[in-house]
Amino acid sequence: MTDTTSRRDTVRTPEAIARTRDLVGPALRYAVDAIPDERMRLVASYQLGWCDANGSAVEGGGGKMIRPTLAVLSAEAVGGGAAAGVPGGVALELVHNFSLLHDDIMDGDTERRHRPTGWVAFGEGQAILAGNAMLTAAVQVVGQDAASAPRTVPHLLGAVQELISGQSADLALERQEHVELDDVLQMEVGKTAALLSCAASIGAVAAGASTHDVAALAEYGHSVGLAFQLVDDVLGVIGDPSVTGKSASSDVRAGKSSAVIIAAMRSGTPAAQRLEVLLQDGPPKSEEEVAQVTSAILDAGGVEWALAEADRLLDRAVGALDRLKQIDRRTREDLVNVARYIVARDR
Amino acid sequence: MTDTTSRRDTVRTPEAIARTRDLVGPALRYAVDAIPDERMRLVASYQLGWCDANGSAVEGGGGKMIRPTLAVLSAEAVGGGAAAGVPGGVALELVHNFSLLHDDIMDGDTERRHRPTGWVAFGEGQAILAGNAMLTAAVQVVGQDAASAPRTVPHLLGAVQELISGQSADLALERQEHVELDDVLQMEVGKTAALLSCAASIGAVAAGASTHDVAALAEYGHSVGLAFQLVDDVLGVIGDPSVTGKSASSDVRAGKSSAVIIAAMRSGTPAAQRLEVLLQDGPPKSEEEVAQVTSAILDAGGVEWALAEADRLLDRAVGALDRLKQIDRRTREDLVNVARYIVARDR
Repeated sequence: MTDTTSRRDTVRTPEAIARTRDLVGPALRYAVDAIPDERMRLVASYQLGWCDANGSAVEGGGGKMIRPTLAVLSAEAVGGGAAAGVPGGVALELVHNFSLLHDDIMDGDTERRHRPTGWVAFGEGQAILAGNAMLTAAVQVVGQDAASAPRTVPHLLGAVQELISGQSADLALERQEHVELDDVLQMEVGKTAALLSCAASIGAVAAGASTHDVAALAEYGHSVGLAFQLVDDVLGVIGDPSVTGKSASSDVRAGKSSAVIIAAMRSGTPAAQRLEVLLQDGPPKSEEEVAQVTSAILDAGGVEWALAEADRLLDRAVGALDRLKQIDRRTREDLVNVARYIVARDR
Repeated sequence: MTDTTSRRDTVRTPEAIARTRDLVGPALRYAVDAIPDERMRLVASYQLGWCDANGSAVEGGGGKMIRPTLAVLSAEAVGGGAAAGVPGGVALELVHNFSLLHDDIMDGDTERRHRPTGWVAFGEGQAILAGNAMLTAAVQVVGQDAASAPRTVPHLLGAVQELISGQSADLALERQEHVELDDVLQMEVGKTAALLSCAASIGAVAAGASTHDVAALAEYGHSVGLAFQLVDDVLGVIGDPSVTGKSASSDVRAGKSSAVIIAAMRSGTPAAQRLEVLLQDGPPKSEEEVAQVTSAILDAGGVEWALAEADRLLDRAVGALDRLKQIDRRTREDLVNVARYIVARDR
């Protein structure tokens, strides 16, 4: 296993992220401004972190724009201009936020990024509708370029269907008594990897890249996405609250069937049996029980497995880049840095 | 005002509707089958009336397919083949049902077509997701034809944004103390006319019709849509429960700000003042109060105004067809019959 400490030192915010924010940011604003309904524009702007619930601008708002960064780099990776990745980047950021807005309703989450979630601020109905408006706007953006739309629109919509499928599986797994690790991983692929895979290839699709190159970039994004999710699951068990902004062992408290927790339960170890007993009446209630469950997960090797798997996926992502013939040194370096940044454990 | 009785005799189900059901039905099934997630296919099939909540096929299920009929006729109206209207027809039926599925959640409606609504049958989260999957599938269908997609995709998505805006305005008006008739009409245009306008023109757009012809067909659909909504509002005040399947005066009981009710309240008549007083503490509670409110709406001329307006819009719809140079006699007759059928008062 890679030394976590040494990697942590290398993971500063990659320069490519600031660069694409400057490039894609204005196009994203333009796309949101083009939503015809004023109320929908307000909810979308709030969700994107640009303003408060009254519409007053927020200083330094906005997300990290990971997906737009990947979209732009994917265009450059096949020798296309950065501009070819902009519509796809805008669309992916909109789709990502549409899904956050809707997921918060379904999961009953009341806070995101230290603010009330969209449905809390604007009501459930308006939040559902604004999500729909953002999804629609996303397709409108990629649909506008007549030359690339016949390729990019289906590429985007296929990923949206996978995303929907992942969230649907997530809701279904919550009600299921016995959950298998494969089902959890498939759900996480849909919820996270599908969209990152699309982001990491849509710029290349727009630039007219070969199926071979698109597949390599999609695999890069897919691997990074699943690795990210596994690390996220690890943080849900042992994350530092001062870094994650969530309570310690948040997934343990919520009784979530994350890959880490299910891997531990299905490990066939004595600790797995302990875990089964501890969780048979639902999530732990006292702080003592939370500590017992957390240590059983660690003893069963759930965290170790997930971190090793994340490392393997990160290697695989970097390996996929080697299949690209036209990629220049700088773009390759950017994609490697962005992958490391996404999968970093100190967030 | 046209004689309602004599018109009622002429309104049988137009032959064009059965014809397009045979044509578009299989393509609609194909599109739903292409949704990758099994659970999402089930919810979509249930929403479309094809199966019960366990997935068992329902005999004679499925809606009237008004929107697909318009899509196919719009292709024929510009001299295109009926087939050019099929993808648009499929998409419009999916979008229509996506919006019903989501609206039932927001409005808290528990029954539709004598069955539990989708969110009641499958849970709110799965219903939100299945709506998203249907919207996505709709765009996928029109996006598949590379030749027409650069025109049809934006045409469809523009209407979807209007639809979203209409539903958002509907939710907002419910919380508003003082509502103006113009606001209600604008909301109803978004909720009903936008999609019918798109349906009545998307086949022509796919067939490569001129802007002039597309605009004429869009105006036809817009007028039919608003006329339909106004008649629906009339039925919400004086409809026969044995025909409408709703309780008598359902909009009155629900305290809805329909165009008919707001037109009555803003009529400046003595009955309008009576109405204002009757409704100042919310919707009527007793049967006696329901009867008083209903008769005040009638006395204030709300119903008369809406029926006259619906007639004017129906004439305008038929008039728009006269602007089409290439339309053949049969297609014109079909479009006139379908318009009369949609706006019929005996439903």
